[in-house]
Amino acid sequence: MKFTMAAMTADERATLQQLLRGVRVAHLGTLREAAPMVSMTLFLPAADLSAFHVHVSRLAWHTQDMLQDARVSLVIAESDDGRADPQTLARITLRGEAVQRPGEGDEFQRLKRAWLERFPESAVTFGLADFSFWRIAPRDARYVAGLGRAYNLSADALRAAAI
Amino acid sequence: MKFTMAAMTADERATLQQLLRGVRVAHLGTLREAAPMVSMTLFLPAADLSAFHVHVSRLAWHTQDMLQDARVSLVIAESDDGRADPQTLARITLRGEAVQRPGEGDEFQRLKRAWLERFPESAVTFGLADFSFWRIAPRDARYVAGLGRAYNLSADALRAAAI
Repeated sequence: MKFTMAAMTADERATLQQLLRGVRVAHLGTLREAAPMVSMTLFLPAADLSAFHVHVSRLAWHTQDMLQDARVSLVIAESDDGRADPQTLARITLRGEAVQRPGEGDEFQRLKRAWLERFPESAVTFGLADFSFWRIAPRDARYVAGLGRAYNLSADALRAAAI
Repeated sequence: MKFTMAAMTADERATLQQLLRGVRVAHLGTLREAAPMVSMTLFLPAADLSAFHVHVSRLAWHTQDMLQDARVSLVIAESDDGRADPQTLARITLRGEAVQRPGEGDEFQRLKRAWLERFPESAVTFGLADFSFWRIAPRDARYVAGLGRAYNLSADALRAAAI
């Protein structure tokens, strides 16, 4: 079943905002020799949810994958809290392309500040030459708020849900 | 850095076993029009870890994807427990092919019993004609036990780690 944004309840909207802004860990899908590869990653949402950034090492498989093919999928899910039915955990899958960003300049400094505010323990990675930011701009998203409650969202609808 | 099985510490081995047997939720990577798609799923490990089963609806995107291309990736990760550095969460990525299993017979009954023991709230899905089991036999695995502690494991090494 699919619902338009108009049918999203206030609770589902609040859960979506919590997923996009409050969750720290995501799973990144990349292509590795044209086959699916998924790996855990930390992420930073842009304030207006127009983009999601990851800070990754060139030595990591997912980075090597993105250098070969920019197409990615990023899933953000509620943590399993031990509830009776884990199928009801909310999650959202974003799809889009990943673009490597420069390691200097205003944008880099802004991202670095925001990243360190969110992940203070990762300061060491900014001293390593093999790490850089990648920007994932979602083209579309699929939000599963619970059993039978799935929403296909455009990038615009996703941003609208964040307000 | 990569380590052979011999270098895996007892703690890392215990964490691997907890990931494979104790975690209930995974993220499944599939191909959707040749691009990466990732979605949350519940899973059931075989006792000897030779296979991981999912019970999915034909109406779900990941099932439609697997019907088109059997190649998948399955990530099992520790839940974010709010620790200072979430990059240290342990996780394992399995890669292999997914094969749909029959909806009747001894294997089905055995899987159904084990699934319902693990996920009692999902009984309703066994009354729906669009659900079936898929078997994912890992060809290889990449286990990240923590920062700089990554292991590439063959299917045999993965099973050996489970003993």
